Amino acid sequence: MKTPLTAVAISCTLKPSPASSSSDLLATQLLDALSGHGVTGELVRAVDLTVSPGVDKDMGGDDQWPSVRRRVLDADILVFVTPTWMGQHSSVAQRVLERLDAELSETDARGRPTLFDKVAVAGIVGNEDGAHHIAAILFQSLNDVGFTIPAQGSVYWNGEAMHTTDYKDLDQTPEKVASAMSTAAKNAAHLARALKAQEYPVG
Amino acid sequence: MKTPLTAVAISCTLKPSPASSSSDLLATQLLDALSGHGVTGELVRAVDLTVSPGVDKDMGGDDQWPSVRRRVLDADILVFVTPTWMGQHSSVAQRVLERLDAELSETDARGRPTLFDKVAVAGIVGNEDGAHHIAAILFQSLNDVGFTIPAQGSVYWNGEAMHTTDYKDLDQTPEKVASAMSTAAKNAAHLARALKAQEYPVG
Amino acid sequence: MKTPLTAVAISCTLKPSPASSSSDLLATQLLDALSGHGVTGELVRAVDLTVSPGVDKDMGGDDQWPSVRRRVLDADILVFVTPTWMGQHSSVAQRVLERLDAELSETDARGRPTLFDKVAVAGIVGNEDGAHHIAAILFQSLNDVGFTIPAQGSVYWNGEAMHTTDYKDLDQTPEKVASAMSTAAKNAAHLARALKAQEYPVG
Amino acid sequence: MKTPLTAVAISCTLKPSPASSSSDLLATQLLDALSGHGVTGELVRAVDLTVSPGVDKDMGGDDQWPSVRRRVLDADILVFVTPTWMGQHSSVAQRVLERLDAELSETDARGRPTLFDKVAVAGIVGNEDGAHHIAAILFQSLNDVGFTIPAQGSVYWNGEAMHTTDYKDLDQTPEKVASAMSTAAKNAAHLARALKAQEYPVG
Repeated sequence: MKTPLTAVAISCTLKPSPASSSSDLLATQLLDALSGHGVTGELVRAVDLTVSPGVDKDMGGDDQWPSVRRRVLDADILVFVTPTWMGQHSSVAQRVLERLDAELSETDARGRPTLFDKVAVAGIVGNEDGAHHIAAILFQSLNDVGFTIPAQGSVYWNGEAMHTTDYKDLDQTPEKVASAMSTAAKNAAHLARALKAQEYPVG
Repeated sequence: MKTPLTAVAISCTLKPSPASSSSDLLATQLLDALSGHGVTGELVRAVDLTVSPGVDKDMGGDDQWPSVRRRVLDADILVFVTPTWMGQHSSVAQRVLERLDAELSETDARGRPTLFDKVAVAGIVGNEDGAHHIAAILFQSLNDVGFTIPAQGSVYWNGEAMHTTDYKDLDQTPEKVASAMSTAAKNAAHLARALKAQEYPVG
Repeated sequence: MKTPLTAVAISCTLKPSPASSSSDLLATQLLDALSGHGVTGELVRAVDLTVSPGVDKDMGGDDQWPSVRRRVLDADILVFVTPTWMGQHSSVAQRVLERLDAELSETDARGRPTLFDKVAVAGIVGNEDGAHHIAAILFQSLNDVGFTIPAQGSVYWNGEAMHTTDYKDLDQTPEKVASAMSTAAKNAAHLARALKAQEYPVG
Repeated sequence: MKTPLTAVAISCTLKPSPASSSSDLLATQLLDALSGHGVTGELVRAVDLTVSPGVDKDMGGDDQWPSVRRRVLDADILVFVTPTWMGQHSSVAQRVLERLDAELSETDARGRPTLFDKVAVAGIVGNEDGAHHIAAILFQSLNDVGFTIPAQGSVYWNGEAMHTTDYKDLDQTPEKVASAMSTAAKNAAHLARALKAQEYPVG
């Protein structure tokens, strides 16, 4: 039997609950795809929480990042999903990356970075244009703090240039998106399991 | 005598007042450089205000963006300054860009985009690496909503790779930064004055 | 009567002549749009020339960059058009940018950078995704060497995510592309004329 | 005993041999670091070969990409090193990415993408600024065609903003660069070995 794994998906929509969100939809679909590979997951909608500006692991006051951080540290797989605004990852997504920056100073009991052996996949939705650029930024940032990126580890959808349809309003999931999702989930679960069995060595 | 001009500088530091900020410093220096060309300016520290997530010009509730927006619409020159976190413009900077996105739907009395004839310059500070990438994103985003970018319109400072010195802690402004600042200010003022005299034509 | 202006369009397709090219098509359309504003233009297809690797204004040997450079220096407006490969501007486009890098060391008779008072517009085509990112890079690079970027100075077309249609195979120019082209051409001509009348001041 | 592995490093300097090159130096250092983990490697200096423009695996004529491609397919680890020009990866680097684009259509005997189970690390050198942006683009592009990115899989060096020192002219390798190199090599070898033992599953 395969080792059970856990995932946390962070949706970085700008819209507080209960508004419907394309990012939430893609995040949920990615968690569903992962569940077919023995991965149990949960969704965090970051904009519903107070994530304070700063680059410490706990900014104090009403900062709710520490609870998100705990879930990231407890999970084997991070599913990072952002909408596209002005061609960029959202301000909510950037806020999450800024808070993950603190992990550069953190190590586990064996002296390794806290996020080693964890796998990250990227999901990007938008009306039009921006996904490769954003996937690049997410991969670089998440890799820098310690995540490993599985082969073909991003999933995205955009419409044609200057169009305005939302992913959540499509009649059905486009076949190519479904295929990319299937590949990313399969590879993420495989890689997380391989790294759980064979952890990165100490320094 | 030269036409008087106005500028608004938005500093996108993550640190609320009264903490000292490299972004505030660079923004202030850019305003000073502009003042030598007949430009009167003011500084907005965005993190001190509630800028709500969203892409409307007024998100309602306690949203304080409308007051910033008013100052941007009243000014001839926008000085947009951001720190660098994870190699990216800050979440505060991205929040400001998201709110400027609303201007794509706004037009002036003559049917032109509200931000036409205005000039934008970019300022970027960081411990190390990221300025070209961020200047690119700022130029593209600000140009898309209507700003014109003057020749050599960016100013930046970073230290050597993986170093940790802040711009505000340098003994003095590096000569090359001072020179870039002088050029950007001179060109911005010249261009804003030229566009004020000869506005972009109607559609 | 309006001051006559000149433009040079550099198409950075990977395909040597006589293959049909979406980049050439967009470049030609932009030149046509400019001609309606008193701008006479010509098209250079860079891949048909030997543009040697390096960052000098003349790499010697069979390097044909000097002839392109001459045309750029003689023109008031640069129309820079690139296809999208792997989400990026083409290797041919990057080669052109590298050669323009040499202009950072060049000054005119009055001691100003050689490219001051010139205006650049960006055109980007691709099957899917990448235009904002590429426009950003083109704006930053071209601005850095001295070009001014007119309001809403980019034009692009991409299809839906992971689609494979080429711009040149569309039945007709999409209305939003035509509209963006019209705006970019109008603004570029206006700005180039304004800068020709009122040049950036010396140092 | 550990499974022996192989690596190919592609240096994307703009300078043909025998000029000294910072990219070649970093690539050689990365291969040395890998050799300490049982990885045998070789260096390819792409600019010395004719890599034709295009996106096919063999463009015919005097195209020498097929020999590079063979070495990439034979290796377990790709070390991709580029210099920074205009804040971007070099035109030679982009040319290599364009040619790797062809792998999106290629599959192995089991129907999997040809590059699955292979690991890529990124090396970036420059006088100043650009490494995070370029690492992001390399990770996204290489991941898209099938490579897996090991935790903290990039190594870079830049000087302070607007400085002009080359990596190859430093008195010694900066400690932080040496440390990043050690981590990237260790993690790449570990991951490549893990994926060789446990290949990504079919479909």
